[in-house]
Parts: sequence; structure tokens; C-alpha cells
Amino acid sequence: MKSNTVYKTFNTEGRRELIRITEEVQAAVDEAGIAEGLALVGAMHITAAVWINDDEPGLHEDTLEWLDKVAPPSWKEPANDVARELLPDPGDYRHHRGGEDNGDAHLKNLLVHHQVIVPITDGRLDLGPWQQVFYCEFDGRRPKRMIIKVLGE
Amino acid sequence: MKSNTVYKTFNTEGRRELIRITEEVQAAVDEAGIAEGLALVGAMHITAAVWINDDEPGLHEDTLEWLDKVAPPSWKEPANDVARELLPDPGDYRHHRGGEDNGDAHLKNLLVHHQVIVPITDGRLDLGPWQQVFYCEFDGRRPKRMIIKVLGE
Amino acid sequence: MKSNTVYKTFNTEGRRELIRITEEVQAAVDEAGIAEGLALVGAMHITAAVWINDDEPGLHEDTLEWLDKVAPPSWKEPANDVARELLPDPGDYRHHRGGEDNGDAHLKNLLVHHQVIVPITDGRLDLGPWQQVFYCEFDGRRPKRMIIKVLGE
Repeated sequence: MKSNTVYKTFNTEGRRELIRITEEVQAAVDEAGIAEGLALVGAMHITAAVWINDDEPGLHEDTLEWLDKVAPPSWKEPANDVARELLPDPGDYRHHRGGEDNGDAHLKNLLVHHQVIVPITDGRLDLGPWQQVFYCEFDGRRPKRMIIKVLGE
Repeated sequence: MKSNTVYKTFNTEGRRELIRITEEVQAAVDEAGIAEGLALVGAMHITAAVWINDDEPGLHEDTLEWLDKVAPPSWKEPANDVARELLPDPGDYRHHRGGEDNGDAHLKNLLVHHQVIVPITDGRLDLGPWQQVFYCEFDGRRPKRMIIKVLGE
Repeated sequence: MKSNTVYKTFNTEGRRELIRITEEVQAAVDEAGIAEGLALVGAMHITAAVWINDDEPGLHEDTLEWLDKVAPPSWKEPANDVARELLPDPGDYRHHRGGEDNGDAHLKNLLVHHQVIVPITDGRLDLGPWQQVFYCEFDGRRPKRMIIKVLGE
């Protein structure tokens, strides 16, 4: 069994961003010289996620808008009445009592999930025609790490 | 380390369907002759998912109804006011500008997650008594692929 | 390739609880004597989940409250109008026709996801500074099993 562990640090300009990382994951597989195996790709922070979906800007905008309704930030006006009612009943996240303001980003981490496992076949990420891997930042503007762990033979 | 890669194509009659695939995943494990390992089961499309839960028709109906409220389609009347407010603010998904109508299916993929990893112990899928594996189609009526990748010894 | 399979049974006092299990997962890795690999941690029941996030009580309270709004129980008064409209249209979950009352717990399993895969590097769980592993019980007060499956070398 061979393995390769790669860490990547993001420091996004925006608070929330989707960043395509398919090529970095493939590079970690190439570096490992693995033909058959798995590549785990995981955020190492609790306010970020990894998603496999389409590289289509309209979809990304839809998704970030929808995430703000389902897991609403309390640092800006709720998008509408549904977002308002999905905020915590104390009026603000209890998590903010310690000085944080990213309670919504923890729930977005929950919704999107912090990791994916990509199958590797014949040395290539075995993805469907539209599948791309994205790092999803929900509380950026500071250095945050991600791990790529490749295992196989 | 042994591995086995199996692709399965679904072409569902309905737009949305949950299809039990536990037996297919076990067959891929049997074929690989693996006693201890992992079986990754993943949709290769961005509008489908894989879920492990109960094989109970009432639950499946509940789940599809609930998914239509939380991630509402724009090709039919919203189920209620909450579903209406969870639709994107431009009135329709931005993703539909290219001619698609499956924006909701991308969000359902996000909610359910596109993959599971099933542990293999003594050559059997190591699932709990009620756990079954389901392929979840959210935009069917056309050929869509799924991968089963088994690794172990 | 080495492997280690550990089962853990929870019998929570409360119906819903988040229980930190990072140390148990590390113990399973230690026991296996694995330096590089993966640790799968999965609920073996369909009304529980595993989540990696912050060990902060306020966040846990926020999360359980939010889950009750998005995936509302029908065995208590809905938290507000949004929770009421996210309940199934027949008034109660179809899943309850067989005598169950845990329909919401199945949807919480879907939202949180029943499993995580933790990377192992140099014999340690390769987690970020705030990442802890939690077993998430949504229908407790009875024995429920979880699997830790460690693979690597």
C-alpha cells in the first residue's frame, strides 16, 4: 500500500467562496504513483466543506443563496421570513457568546459535509463527466487548511 | 491489496426514485474476494445521491416530499410558502439560464450526499440490522452511472 | 494491509445527544498499530449520525435546535411556522403508520450523514485544531451500535 498526504492552505478574499480543486487532487494522486485506490479530500476546519458538483457559476450562486436561507448568518439581515425563523430562538447563535460570528458556517459545514472520497482507477480520479471537486469556504479571509490523503497501490 | 470497480447504469421511469442496491454492492465485494476492506458507492452524476437508511416505503415518500420542500423544484408549483421562499430570489434557479430545469436536483445531491463508504468485515457489508443502501435519483429518465469501488484484502 | 474493527454501543439517557468519541477512534487506531490509513466511523442505525465539528456546548445546542426546525419531530409542537410547514402534508410522517414516532430522526440522519472517514497520518487522527468526532443520537434511550473500521499500514 502506498500513501501520499498533501495539505493545502486557503486564504480567500471573500468570506464565502467555492474553489475548484480537482486538479490539485489529481496531482496528489500522480505524485503517489497510485493506480487503484481512494483519495480523501477533507476540510480541516469546522466552517468549510468539500463538495463534488458542477463547475457552473449560476449553480454556485444558487447554492450560496440557498445555504444562506437554510443556515442563515446572524451578521446580516435574514434573506426572508423563512431564514429569519431558521435563526436560533435566543435571537443569535449561542455559539456567538464567546465572540464568534460564524454559527451559520458550522451549519453549512453540516449541510455540505466536510469531506469526499474520490475513487482512483488506472491512476485517474474516477469522476463522472460533470463532477468537479470544490473546496467550500464559509468563513474565510484567514488561513485555513485542507487535507488530501491518497491510499492505494 | 485487491480492488474491484463496478459501474452500474440507471435509467429510471420516474424523475425521482429511490432504488435499493445493497445486493449489487455485496455482489461487487463477493466478486473481489475481499474479507476486510471498504466499498465506496457513489453517484457519478451531480443530480443523484446514495443514501443508507431503512427500506420502508412510507419513509421514502416522506423523504421525497421533504426534499421537495427544502430544495424546491421550479418546474412545478411550490409545495407551500416555505418551499416558495426557499426558491432562488431571481424567481428561478440561475442554473436554468443554460436551458436546464434541474437546479433543485443539485441541491438534493448536496443534502443527501453523493456517496457512502460501506465497511466490509469477514467478506460481508458490515451494516446494521435496518441499514440498506439506496441509489437516489433526482433527475432521471435518462442513463446515469454509479460507481462501486471495493478495496481491501 | 492491517485492519481493526471496533463496535461501540450507546444507550443515551436523552432522546437526542451529541457524544464526543475522538478518543475512542484514536484508541482503535492505536490498537491496530497503523501509521498511514483511514478510520471509518459510522452509525449502524438509521436514526443516528456521526459529525466532525467543534466541541462547544453552545454550538451543539444551536445545532439541535436548528435540526428540530429543518427536520421537525411530530411528537411535539413544531418550533414555529417554518417547522410546521416542513412536516409532511398528511399531518404526520407516513413512516409512523407502523407505530414508530421517529420520522424526524431519519431526516436528521440524512442531514448530518451517518458516517465520516478520518485520515490517519503517523499513527494519529489527522484532524484540524478544532475538529472533534461526535456520535449524534436522534432517537436514543435504547442500545444502538456504531462501527469504527481502521485500515492501513
